Amino acid sequence: MVSVHLLPSMIPPGALRGGVAVVIDVLRASTTIVHALTHGCEAVIPCGEIDEARAIADKLPRGTALLGGERRGEPIPGFDLGNSPGDYTADACRGKTLVMTTTNGTRALLASLEAETVLIGAFVNFAATVQRLIHEVRPIHVVCAGTDARISYEDSLLAGAFASRLADLEHDLANDEAEVVHGLWEHVEENVWSHGDHGGRPGEVHPLVHYLMRGAGGRRVTELGLADDIAIAGALNRDDCHVVVELARDPLRLVVSD
Amino acid sequence: MVSVHLLPSMIPPGALRGGVAVVIDVLRASTTIVHALTHGCEAVIPCGEIDEARAIADKLPRGTALLGGERRGEPIPGFDLGNSPGDYTADACRGKTLVMTTTNGTRALLASLEAETVLIGAFVNFAATVQRLIHEVRPIHVVCAGTDARISYEDSLLAGAFASRLADLEHDLANDEAEVVHGLWEHVEENVWSHGDHGGRPGEVHPLVHYLMRGAGGRRVTELGLADDIAIAGALNRDDCHVVVELARDPLRLVVSD
Repeated sequence: MVSVHLLPSMIPPGALRGGVAVVIDVLRASTTIVHALTHGCEAVIPCGEIDEARAIADKLPRGTALLGGERRGEPIPGFDLGNSPGDYTADACRGKTLVMTTTNGTRALLASLEAETVLIGAFVNFAATVQRLIHEVRPIHVVCAGTDARISYEDSLLAGAFASRLADLEHDLANDEAEVVHGLWEHVEENVWSHGDHGGRPGEVHPLVHYLMRGAGGRRVTELGLADDIAIAGALNRDDCHVVVELARDPLRLVVSD
Repeated sequence: MVSVHLLPSMIPPGALRGGVAVVIDVLRASTTIVHALTHGCEAVIPCGEIDEARAIADKLPRGTALLGGERRGEPIPGFDLGNSPGDYTADACRGKTLVMTTTNGTRALLASLEAETVLIGAFVNFAATVQRLIHEVRPIHVVCAGTDARISYEDSLLAGAFASRLADLEHDLANDEAEVVHGLWEHVEENVWSHGDHGGRPGEVHPLVHYLMRGAGGRRVTELGLADDIAIAGALNRDDCHVVVELARDPLRLVVSD
């Protein structure tokens, strides 16, 4: 059973309990988290507030903390890195713990803690995440971060990709939102496919990228001069991102799942 | 500029001011309203509450009021008719004023009063409504009723049909919700078209009907034994429904627009 929630506020109370949540913020938090973890970060600690992020970073062993995130899409003064996935290189990430605070993505994650298992979904690690869910018997909830409490096109697209692939794998769609984004993805996929084969090799622009530029989030990132971030976010099943990212508890942190 | 709001609660405060709202509740209020007005009702007075509907009906000239509506999809005790469009025949409607109260459709209409012009959109009067909007220069807002504060598949579909047709006619899509349902409709339309030509003649089952059965609203109406209502709601551009329905004010009432 696959439900989609187009905004964290649209999760019915108690619905996630006992289920698996896949949290999505394509532009850019979930893409950045996958990049950080596949380029050497040992864990990502999500924080709601800037002060909280600083306090947590201060308590980590000297030289192991990396402070990252954004407010209104822009880097936070005094932080090591912003929210651009491309900045999370092997050099920046090796042996570090990323303490991260973003507006929409963090809120979506914190709204999903009731689920038994929480995964982070992005286009770059789409296939790996689907593979993990194939035989899942618990209810699956795809939770879209959206942008400032508005439904976002790019999160809806990825939610649709999950709904569509899982429906192909004999999972039932459990709510109307899942049906809506399923249809959206079928439309986009047909157009993306008509562009021919794209293996997701680093450096190659996937046709999905044009779709990611279509929403308000894509336009905002472009305005900020960060169009490269969209190219990275649209790299479907990127070879170097084939991982499942899962939330571990006590303390809360995102790690690559075995 | 075409914006879509997948629920009345998702309309940003003040957004409708100076614009045109197209209110949608495919299953079934907007379909029923179009039927009532094309089968002889002179006006439809929308009411939030059952008692209010009775009080208004009592004040109309003897023999001219028709009380209609639903609660939880079922007819209201003591009312003349429920919310099944097919019940609004010429015999039932001739010379009457329908005083109507439904849960979701009425709420969406009342949430849209700030717009300068308010229209009622259904699949049955889709082409007529689009025709009215072709040269519209004010912002257009498609407001979906949804079902009990949840996004509905069938309303999203019709919103997508409006977004798609208006985009073809050089209107810009103004928010991500419009882009989402645009893609959904493109997918469904392709499948509907592949079924060949359907003129929307009364009595003919349009392939859209299969899609309207896909959401929770369609399943609920089917459970209530009212699958015929869905067949009527899916009759795209029905020959006998080629009208624009507009909200007149002082007092609030829905009428066929000149």
